[in-house]
Amino acid sequence: MSGIGFEILARDGMARLGRLSTAHGIIDTPAFMPVGTAATVKAMTPEAVAATGARIVLGNTYHLMLRPGAERIAALGGLHPFMNWPYAILTDSGGFQVMSLATLRKISEEGVEFRSHLDGSRHLLTPERSVEIQRLLGADITMAFDECTPYPAEREAVEASMELSMRWAERSRHAFVPRPGHGVFGIVQGGVHADLRQRSAARLVDIGFDGYAIGGLAIGEGQDTTFAMVDATAPALPENRPRYLMGVGKPADLVGAVRRGIDIFDCVLPTRSGRTAQAFTREGTLNLRNARHADDPAPLDPECRCPACAGFSRAYLHHLTKSGEILASMLLTAHNLTYYADLMAALRTAIAEGRLADFAFGGAAP
Amino acid sequence: MSGIGFEILARDGMARLGRLSTAHGIIDTPAFMPVGTAATVKAMTPEAVAATGARIVLGNTYHLMLRPGAERIAALGGLHPFMNWPYAILTDSGGFQVMSLATLRKISEEGVEFRSHLDGSRHLLTPERSVEIQRLLGADITMAFDECTPYPAEREAVEASMELSMRWAERSRHAFVPRPGHGVFGIVQGGVHADLRQRSAARLVDIGFDGYAIGGLAIGEGQDTTFAMVDATAPALPENRPRYLMGVGKPADLVGAVRRGIDIFDCVLPTRSGRTAQAFTREGTLNLRNARHADDPAPLDPECRCPACAGFSRAYLHHLTKSGEILASMLLTAHNLTYYADLMAALRTAIAEGRLADFAFGGAAP
Repeated sequence: MSGIGFEILARDGMARLGRLSTAHGIIDTPAFMPVGTAATVKAMTPEAVAATGARIVLGNTYHLMLRPGAERIAALGGLHPFMNWPYAILTDSGGFQVMSLATLRKISEEGVEFRSHLDGSRHLLTPERSVEIQRLLGADITMAFDECTPYPAEREAVEASMELSMRWAERSRHAFVPRPGHGVFGIVQGGVHADLRQRSAARLVDIGFDGYAIGGLAIGEGQDTTFAMVDATAPALPENRPRYLMGVGKPADLVGAVRRGIDIFDCVLPTRSGRTAQAFTREGTLNLRNARHADDPAPLDPECRCPACAGFSRAYLHHLTKSGEILASMLLTAHNLTYYADLMAALRTAIAEGRLADFAFGGAAP
Repeated sequence: MSGIGFEILARDGMARLGRLSTAHGIIDTPAFMPVGTAATVKAMTPEAVAATGARIVLGNTYHLMLRPGAERIAALGGLHPFMNWPYAILTDSGGFQVMSLATLRKISEEGVEFRSHLDGSRHLLTPERSVEIQRLLGADITMAFDECTPYPAEREAVEASMELSMRWAERSRHAFVPRPGHGVFGIVQGGVHADLRQRSAARLVDIGFDGYAIGGLAIGEGQDTTFAMVDATAPALPENRPRYLMGVGKPADLVGAVRRGIDIFDCVLPTRSGRTAQAFTREGTLNLRNARHADDPAPLDPECRCPACAGFSRAYLHHLTKSGEILASMLLTAHNLTYYADLMAALRTAIAEGRLADFAFGGAAP
């Protein structure tokens, strides 16, 4: 087949142990994708990202089209050599950032006209242009261009937005140029309305994608509602295709969503937290700025295999965060991404062994 | 002997190829010490610092006594395990920073009373306390506590300051507790006056130190004057002990000072420049913010072995600097420290081969 491969190796309830095959390698699922917004996972070398266990990262169409520019990256060989990342890359379509970052947005059937948040320059992002940018970047997985529906919003507005996104999804699908090892994912919208989510899912399945994302969640609706929407949507998606819950989430969110049949995640939480002195550990989240760590010779998490836990004390990490040292961001980001990678690995093992119902991982309790 | 060992393996004119032996390993000289002010070489993991070739780093008594505190570091096992650096550490005495950073300084025969630049707390730094702090930190090489003479200053003021520093040097020497593999260096002062420098050197040699530093230079007097002071001072120092030119310098400064018999250097230039988009290369200094790099697929320096040159283009580094990404600081610091380490290695080879007179290293021309 010309798209990306997806093989399901084991099931446990709704959860699936899978293997995603791309032009840049295989990804064991369920998988978490570190966010590499501007062609870098912040405060990490590519080698350090790979050492956490990650085999796919997310890049941002919106950021990269504005700086340094998609055509420039293409002329330099694409995003993989540009950022020196040899594994898979998924790019989002720009739909989310254009709504959250750009100014003077004007949405039409054609697409979104906006001004750059960097220099005020005018741009038009359409499904066709978004998919073209993602091809120029060399994304292994291209995301359909969609409208990010605000939350909360009236049902009528959510429905109209979802319908627009579905027409854009069809245009995105047609604009995608099939290449071996490369695929395009559709994005289910519909806000917090189960019937709209199901209608959106059915429409995407009609169009036919290599994988299916659930978008427009984790934007303030609360975990119960997020899970309810996943419950309503996942069964409406093809069994044999990967499912991606966008922008999720906290460790307990990942566990709950995997139990509901989700295969792929992305979130800024582990990287952003790493730059604000927050560490995810098996005993819960720690704030390294807290003075109680000042004299503590223990590592962040004695069970963790990351460079921060292998070589440094909480006292040292506290000192680095208090001193505003770059190494604090580097070590805590490496730690948090390792925690997330190890959580996903533990989920995969639990699915393989059929014991997801009893799954426990320190720090990932609901 | 109880101090640090120093063996001279070859000479070329005034220059020496040497081997410094400490409790934390051997350092080939001439050597450059990366600056690790607050128990971290900024934007670098210890592994990355070691990968540049560095086998000794500098720590700062002033910064560390204020945060996190010398007694705290001692309780955590000392600076080596605290910052996870297994090689040698030289600590400066605090004399320079107390003059450049602290407020409400009051200098007396006893020492310097000052307020912390961090929180306004009051502290007294004396020769005895400075040496005690450096012992608590576990420094392989302790520096005598001195007064940093302002530049420019009247000769009478420079002379009085130098004489005070010499009395403090004697107190520092007496306060130092001899331990195997650990040593204490005296610091020559005397401003830009050759006769004061020579009197200072003679006084320090009378006291007897494991090594001799030349301080109070590279603070605005210009390279010619710096070199003139080195010319006046080096011959007054013992042949069989290491010589350390503090706070120097640019690549060409290092070449000139090695030719004049200096063995050890430290400077914030390669690390600070790495955080401000400046790269030292064999074709000279590059400003990565410059738009001419935006489409350049070439590495920073094709002859460089560092991670930045091995994996990334100038175009990517330009993008990172323009985007304010932490990875820019990480990669450029690694590159600059590698450039400095390779420059020192080339100087050592030139001395060993007796061809220092014809020494050439791209980017290190005067």
